Amino acid sequence: MRLAMIRIDGVPQPAQVDAEGRHYWPLAELAPDLPADMAGVIAALTGGARIPEPGSPGRPLADDLLTAPLPNPPRNIFCVGKNYHAHAREFARSGYDSSSTSAADAIPKAPIIFSKPFTAISGPWDNIPLWPGLDQGVDYEAELAVVIGRGGRNIARDQALQHVFGYTVVNDVTARDLQGTHKQWLLGKGIDGFCPMGPWIVTADEIGDRPLRITCTVNDEARQDASTADLIFDVPELIQTISRSMALLPGDVIATGTPEGVGIGFKPPRFLRDGDVVDCAIEGIGRIRNRLCRMPG
Amino acid sequence: MRLAMIRIDGVPQPAQVDAEGRHYWPLAELAPDLPADMAGVIAALTGGARIPEPGSPGRPLADDLLTAPLPNPPRNIFCVGKNYHAHAREFARSGYDSSSTSAADAIPKAPIIFSKPFTAISGPWDNIPLWPGLDQGVDYEAELAVVIGRGGRNIARDQALQHVFGYTVVNDVTARDLQGTHKQWLLGKGIDGFCPMGPWIVTADEIGDRPLRITCTVNDEARQDASTADLIFDVPELIQTISRSMALLPGDVIATGTPEGVGIGFKPPRFLRDGDVVDCAIEGIGRIRNRLCRMPG
Repeated sequence: MRLAMIRIDGVPQPAQVDAEGRHYWPLAELAPDLPADMAGVIAALTGGARIPEPGSPGRPLADDLLTAPLPNPPRNIFCVGKNYHAHAREFARSGYDSSSTSAADAIPKAPIIFSKPFTAISGPWDNIPLWPGLDQGVDYEAELAVVIGRGGRNIARDQALQHVFGYTVVNDVTARDLQGTHKQWLLGKGIDGFCPMGPWIVTADEIGDRPLRITCTVNDEARQDASTADLIFDVPELIQTISRSMALLPGDVIATGTPEGVGIGFKPPRFLRDGDVVDCAIEGIGRIRNRLCRMPG
Repeated sequence: MRLAMIRIDGVPQPAQVDAEGRHYWPLAELAPDLPADMAGVIAALTGGARIPEPGSPGRPLADDLLTAPLPNPPRNIFCVGKNYHAHAREFARSGYDSSSTSAADAIPKAPIIFSKPFTAISGPWDNIPLWPGLDQGVDYEAELAVVIGRGGRNIARDQALQHVFGYTVVNDVTARDLQGTHKQWLLGKGIDGFCPMGPWIVTADEIGDRPLRITCTVNDEARQDASTADLIFDVPELIQTISRSMALLPGDVIATGTPEGVGIGFKPPRFLRDGDVVDCAIEGIGRIRNRLCRMPG
């Protein structure tokens, strides 16, 4: 099943989307007892609520009706740094990595977890703002994001996938200069509008635990093309690790890290500029496509 | 004015507290049009709502009625690392500092900002949980916390204090082993129950911009005793820096960093143990007092 937030009469509302992404059914019609926000829908479905099979052909879905599928997670989304082998080496070489000081240190021994606030989240077709003064080192990071269903503390690795509600795509947009200057990554990663998400959440039953191809293009030029099989810390390990420190909650999001091919992997770095279009896609989920847009000073 | 969350008939509700902390008036009686949560109260007061002068002597306040004054900030609270000169040197010497590699690097050139989720926040007299497996490197950090009133983006230094609603005390409890292992600090800092807060919010008009004495004791032994005058990056600079990356929101919290005297400043480190009592106090605000308590496995 695919769940999206769709502007209906201008107001984002949860909806079910068909497998082709061409039609939708507002949950307010399919299952009127469900909450009107996606975090609430996830908690209700995890608690046993059901959405009946649609009995109609649905309404036509245009891309520009989609907003971020989970704009209101219960707390800052969790993000993972340096979590693909090839990218960890690329990042350590780049000179922007404040978490590592030598090539020998490139592959993390434990997951590197930071956060992005909900105010960074934007829709799958929204512009990425280039804020004055924050626009000189902006980079893309296509990522598989896990949406938690059933919460829990100290979740064991072999139980972890039972806590996954579904998956979506995020672009963990990053201001590399701020990421380095401030050592901890919140200010370089949590910038307003720096987390495009979508186009929808695909429930876990449609994905299973197979490796997924993840790609990113900039102005239709291939930049990232990898498999989630290259993850250093896989989804069960991330869930186990984070839930040791804090009980996971329904609607929590974990962006699992980006593969090789980011802008700072090039010499000189290829940062994003006004008008560039970044397209992040994951097999079995979908694609998000966002244009860089200079903001007034 | 002092605002607290007080258990009334078992339910935490916003209240005004007198200057001695001995009596309170539920806002539901003083100003029934205000929201029932503190983040909402802050937004309403910032927007022009007023609380009338109490006309009664108030109800008697017992310590155990207090919960965290702001248990529901709009997003993870912002925290500042290494923000007192003497502490920055102490931390760099300790061997636990994943953000610095040499003594020359001890004093940060820019604020180090990370976050703690709302699930870490606990009350001013609550126990601090010692979770199995996370209990070998637990340390205290007494901190002045700023509560934002009027939000805004790109707030200039000389306007910044106009955006402060008030101040409270937090203990930025930290698992030093996890803080080092995971490089980014969220997992070592954001542990459930690792952010005691309170006892109340004192509004900015009562504090002004004077330096405040900040102290911490463990089992009544003095550990931290400093002045906020030793801050490397002061409150206006923190507000300016954070609001460059993201618009601040009413109810946002910024924990401004801890002074010298934490457990890892000792050789060998003096970590917190089951039964220890940590008392953090700030002049003009009040004190919070929390006992370490081993949790079942």
